[in-house]
Amino acid sequence: MFEAKIIVTLRSSILDPQGSAVATSLQSLSYPVPEVRIGKYMELTLQASDEQEATALLQIICQKVLANPVMEDYRILQLTRKEE
Amino acid sequence: MFEAKIIVTLRSSILDPQGSAVATSLQSLSYPVPEVRIGKYMELTLQASDEQEATALLQIICQKVLANPVMEDYRILQLTRKEE
Repeated sequence: MFEAKIIVTLRSSILDPQGSAVATSLQSLSYPVPEVRIGKYMELTLQASDEQEATALLQIICQKVLANPVMEDYRILQLTRKEE
Repeated sequence: MFEAKIIVTLRSSILDPQGSAVATSLQSLSYPVPEVRIGKYMELTLQASDEQEATALLQIICQKVLANPVMEDYRILQLTRKEE
Protein backbone atom coordinates (compact mmCIF):
# COMPACT_ATOMS: atom_id res chain seq x y z
CA MET A 1 0.00 0.00 0.00
CA PHE A 2 1.20 3.48 -0.80
CA GLU A 3 -0.03 6.83 0.36
CA ALA A 4 0.11 9.69 -2.14
CA LYS A 5 -0.45 13.39 -1.58
CA ILE A 6 -1.25 15.42 -4.64
CA ILE A 7 -2.22 18.97 -5.50
CA VAL A 8 -4.41 19.98 -8.43
CA THR A 9 -4.34 23.66 -9.37
CA LEU A 10 -5.86 25.73 -12.14
CA ARG A 11 -3.29 26.72 -14.77
CA SER A 12 -2.03 30.22 -14.14
CA SER A 13 -3.66 31.54 -17.32
CA ILE A 14 -7.11 30.42 -16.12
CA LEU A 15 -9.19 32.80 -14.01
CA ASP A 16 -9.95 31.57 -10.50
CA PRO A 17 -13.27 33.09 -9.38
CA GLN A 18 -13.26 31.12 -6.11
CA GLY A 19 -9.85 32.55 -5.21
CA SER A 20 -10.93 36.06 -6.20
CA ALA A 21 -14.00 35.79 -3.99
CA VAL A 22 -11.87 34.72 -1.02
CA ALA A 23 -9.38 37.55 -1.69
CA THR A 24 -12.25 40.10 -1.83
CA SER A 25 -13.68 38.75 1.44
CA LEU A 26 -10.29 38.94 3.16
CA GLN A 27 -9.78 42.50 1.90
CA SER A 28 -13.22 43.54 3.16
CA LEU A 29 -12.11 42.21 6.57
CA SER A 30 -9.01 44.48 6.26
CA TYR A 31 -6.47 41.73 5.76
CA PRO A 32 -3.68 42.78 3.34
CA VAL A 33 -4.12 39.87 0.91
CA PRO A 34 -4.07 41.05 -2.73
CA GLU A 35 -4.37 37.64 -4.32
CA VAL A 36 -5.62 34.14 -3.53
CA ARG A 37 -5.69 31.10 -5.77
CA ILE A 38 -7.43 27.92 -4.70
CA GLY A 39 -6.77 24.36 -5.71
CA LYS A 40 -7.49 20.88 -4.49
CA TYR A 41 -5.42 18.70 -2.19
CA MET A 42 -5.94 14.94 -2.24
CA GLU A 43 -4.60 12.06 -0.18
CA LEU A 44 -4.94 8.70 -1.89
CA THR A 45 -4.23 5.20 -0.67
CA LEU A 46 -2.98 3.05 -3.56
CA GLN A 47 -2.50 -0.70 -3.89
CA ALA A 48 0.75 -1.34 -5.73
CA SER A 49 3.64 -3.75 -5.33
CA ASP A 50 6.48 -1.25 -5.66
CA GLU A 51 7.12 2.46 -5.91
CA GLN A 52 7.52 2.43 -9.67
CA GLU A 53 4.12 0.79 -10.15
CA ALA A 54 2.54 3.21 -7.67
CA THR A 55 4.00 6.24 -9.47
CA ALA A 56 2.81 4.99 -12.86
CA LEU A 57 -0.68 4.30 -11.49
CA LEU A 58 -0.82 7.70 -9.85
CA GLN A 59 0.19 9.49 -13.06
CA ILE A 60 -2.57 7.72 -14.99
CA ILE A 61 -5.19 8.48 -12.32
CA CYS A 62 -4.17 12.15 -12.15
CA GLN A 63 -4.20 12.61 -15.92
CA LYS A 64 -7.41 10.72 -16.59
CA VAL A 65 -9.56 11.31 -13.54
CA LEU A 66 -8.39 13.74 -10.88
CA ALA A 67 -7.17 16.65 -13.00
CA ASN A 68 -8.57 18.14 -16.17
CA PRO A 69 -5.39 18.55 -18.25
CA VAL A 70 -6.99 21.28 -20.39
CA MET A 71 -7.18 23.72 -17.52
CA GLU A 72 -5.46 22.15 -14.52
CA ASP A 73 -1.98 21.09 -13.48
CA TYR A 74 -1.24 18.40 -10.92
CA ARG A 75 1.76 17.91 -8.73
CA ILE A 76 2.70 14.86 -6.65
CA LEU A 77 3.81 16.17 -3.27
CA GLN A 78 4.67 12.87 -1.65
CA LEU A 79 4.46 9.14 -2.26
CA THR A 80 5.23 6.90 0.70
CA ARG A 81 4.92 3.21 1.46
CA LYS A 82 2.40 2.53 4.19
CA GLU A 83 2.22 -0.40 6.57
CA GLU A 84 -0.78 -2.62 5.77
CA MET B 1 5.19 40.77 -0.29
CA PHE B 2 5.10 37.12 0.74
CA GLU B 3 3.67 34.11 -0.95
CA ALA B 4 2.14 31.43 1.24
CA LYS B 5 0.98 27.93 0.34
CA ILE B 6 -1.40 26.30 2.74
CA ILE B 7 -3.45 23.14 2.97
CA VAL B 8 -6.77 22.82 4.77
CA THR B 9 -7.97 19.27 5.47
CA LEU B 10 -10.90 17.76 7.30
CA ARG B 11 -9.88 16.35 10.68
CA SER B 12 -9.34 12.60 10.42
CA SER B 13 -12.36 11.88 12.64
CA ILE B 14 -14.69 13.73 10.25
CA LEU B 15 -16.29 11.79 7.37
CA ASP B 16 -15.28 13.00 3.91
CA PRO B 17 -18.16 12.25 1.50
CA GLN B 18 -16.40 14.00 -1.41
CA GLY B 19 -13.34 11.78 -0.96
CA SER B 20 -15.53 8.67 -0.64
CA ALA B 21 -17.33 9.55 -3.88
CA VAL B 22 -14.01 9.93 -5.71
CA ALA B 23 -12.74 6.63 -4.25
CA THR B 24 -15.94 4.84 -5.37
CA SER B 25 -15.61 6.32 -8.88
CA LEU B 26 -11.97 5.25 -9.14
CA GLN B 27 -12.86 1.74 -7.95
CA SER B 28 -15.66 1.49 -10.52
CA LEU B 29 -13.03 2.33 -13.16
CA SER B 30 -10.93 -0.58 -11.75
CA TYR B 31 -8.21 1.52 -10.15
CA PRO B 32 -6.94 -0.04 -6.89
CA VAL B 33 -7.59 3.00 -4.69
CA PRO B 34 -9.26 2.02 -1.40
CA GLU B 35 -9.33 5.48 0.13
CA VAL B 36 -9.31 9.13 -0.91
CA ARG B 37 -9.52 12.21 1.28
CA ILE B 38 -9.90 15.64 -0.24
CA GLY B 39 -8.85 19.00 1.13
CA LYS B 40 -8.19 22.49 -0.12
CA TYR B 41 -4.93 23.98 -1.29
CA MET B 42 -4.52 27.76 -1.28
CA GLU B 43 -1.84 30.14 -2.51
CA LEU B 44 -2.00 33.57 -0.91
CA THR B 45 -0.07 36.74 -1.57
CA LEU B 46 0.41 38.67 1.68
CA GLN B 47 1.60 42.19 2.34
CA ALA B 48 3.92 42.14 5.35
CA SER B 49 7.21 43.77 6.24
CA ASP B 50 9.02 40.69 7.52
CA GLU B 51 8.61 36.96 7.80
CA GLN B 52 7.50 37.07 11.42
CA GLU B 53 4.68 39.49 10.61
CA ALA B 54 3.67 37.40 7.59
CA THR B 55 3.54 34.21 9.67
CA ALA B 56 1.45 35.87 12.38
CA LEU B 57 -0.97 37.30 9.81
CA LEU B 58 -1.25 33.95 8.06
CA GLN B 59 -2.03 32.13 11.33
CA ILE B 60 -4.83 34.61 12.07
CA ILE B 61 -6.29 34.36 8.58
CA CYS B 62 -6.19 30.56 8.64
CA GLN B 63 -7.79 30.30 12.06
CA LYS B 64 -10.47 32.92 11.53
CA VAL B 65 -11.32 32.71 7.84
CA LEU B 66 -9.81 29.93 5.76
CA ALA B 67 -10.25 26.94 8.04
CA ASN B 68 -13.09 25.97 10.32
CA PRO B 69 -11.17 24.91 13.44
CA VAL B 70 -14.07 22.77 14.67
CA MET B 71 -13.71 20.31 11.82
CA GLU B 72 -10.63 21.27 9.83
CA ASP B 73 -6.87 21.41 10.31
CA TYR B 74 -4.56 23.71 8.38
CA ARG B 75 -0.91 23.38 7.54
CA ILE B 76 1.44 26.01 6.15
CA LEU B 77 3.44 24.31 3.40
CA GLN B 78 5.62 27.22 2.43
CA LEU B 79 6.09 30.92 3.08
CA THR B 80 8.46 32.78 0.78
CA ARG B 81 9.36 36.40 0.16
CA LYS B 82 8.36 37.53 -3.29
CA GLU B 83 9.83 40.32 -5.41
CA GLU B 84 7.39 43.21 -5.72
